[in-house]
Amino acid sequence: MKKTISVPTITAFKNSPDRGKGLARDMRVRWALEEVEQPYNVQLVTFEELKQPSHLALQPFGQIPSYEEGDLVLFESGAIVFHIAEKHTGLLPSEAKARAHAIAWMFCALNTIEAPIVERSSFVLFEHDKSWYNERLPLLDERVHVRLKQLSSHLGNASWLDGAFSAGDLLMVTVLRRLGSSGLLNHYPNLCDYIARAEARPAYQRAFASQLAVFNDTLNS
Amino acid sequence: MKKTISVPTITAFKNSPDRGKGLARDMRVRWALEEVEQPYNVQLVTFEELKQPSHLALQPFGQIPSYEEGDLVLFESGAIVFHIAEKHTGLLPSEAKARAHAIAWMFCALNTIEAPIVERSSFVLFEHDKSWYNERLPLLDERVHVRLKQLSSHLGNASWLDGAFSAGDLLMVTVLRRLGSSGLLNHYPNLCDYIARAEARPAYQRAFASQLAVFNDTLNS
Repeated sequence: MKKTISVPTITAFKNSPDRGKGLARDMRVRWALEEVEQPYNVQLVTFEELKQPSHLALQPFGQIPSYEEGDLVLFESGAIVFHIAEKHTGLLPSEAKARAHAIAWMFCALNTIEAPIVERSSFVLFEHDKSWYNERLPLLDERVHVRLKQLSSHLGNASWLDGAFSAGDLLMVTVLRRLGSSGLLNHYPNLCDYIARAEARPAYQRAFASQLAVFNDTLNS
Repeated sequence: MKKTISVPTITAFKNSPDRGKGLARDMRVRWALEEVEQPYNVQLVTFEELKQPSHLALQPFGQIPSYEEGDLVLFESGAIVFHIAEKHTGLLPSEAKARAHAIAWMFCALNTIEAPIVERSSFVLFEHDKSWYNERLPLLDERVHVRLKQLSSHLGNASWLDGAFSAGDLLMVTVLRRLGSSGLLNHYPNLCDYIARAEARPAYQRAFASQLAVFNDTLNS
């Protein structure tokens, strides 16, 4: 009897607020799956569907992406990427110390770096019409700069954060890309090169094209 | 020849801004080490020392805790707790699906839940004298409530987030405790019980006593 291979299914926004820029969190999971050459299905969900009990059973916080593989159901993009990285080769080094370092960069991307970046982008999105907007934005820019400066110092002239490309780089690049058109990254040429190096990977390009196709389909429907 | 056991060394604040309340991120690592009964050393560092090249070599973002075990150096409390959980039994289930769920809760605690909680507490700490403070605080309270409500719904009457106590619960409880005296948790009796249940664990109590002793020593020195 042949072993049944469960093709995973992920959820993604039917109408992503990023308009196909690859900033939604399904991009991380698509990219990881492309790096390990694992085919996958995508179930598109509306904002209304995210709040329904059927989705909340998969994802208690009403977010995307969720991940289903046979009877395994996962949420949190970091945990899904980690699961893919453990199940396949290519995203985590096998040597124990290098593996632990790559995992540290995964947590770093999603906690130390993402927190001030999301705080800033939420502020721009939701509070641009508030009286305090112009006075407060520089405070948030400065918090992001503190982290970018430290990250830039650590990276130096290296290609990736710690040796070979890993799930830590994959998550870090998706987090940095959320700064989008803010201009904050322009002060750090080595971080811009780092992002460009990641975006040039064929797996990244396939993942980006897939999520862009969803946006284009929505426009044409 | 006996195998050499490396007793890990972690860093913690010499003068923790939480005044011994166990809210600094070394508490997570102390608690994890106590759960698995692994002795450890603590190196206390001042805020000035965190910015020195010798510490930045261990921790590129000038934070605590860092973790040294033989020639392995790690940073990010989530990654350190994960390393401890992988190396010892007791913090991650061995069954694959349950293990993946516990890891999802680790990432959830440090991303989905911690981000709005830290955003709020930083605001209270650094912007209490700003003109926008009173008008803006309710916006941040509401963002925290959205997550607490979903978490409370998920937990229901269960003791822990997914089956037995895991590293996911350990991180989640340390994140929720950061709400401290805000009063926001009072709306969720099951989350208060969850935190109390965790705080009653002997390993938690040993870890709490250790970090409190540092604060008391500082007071008396």
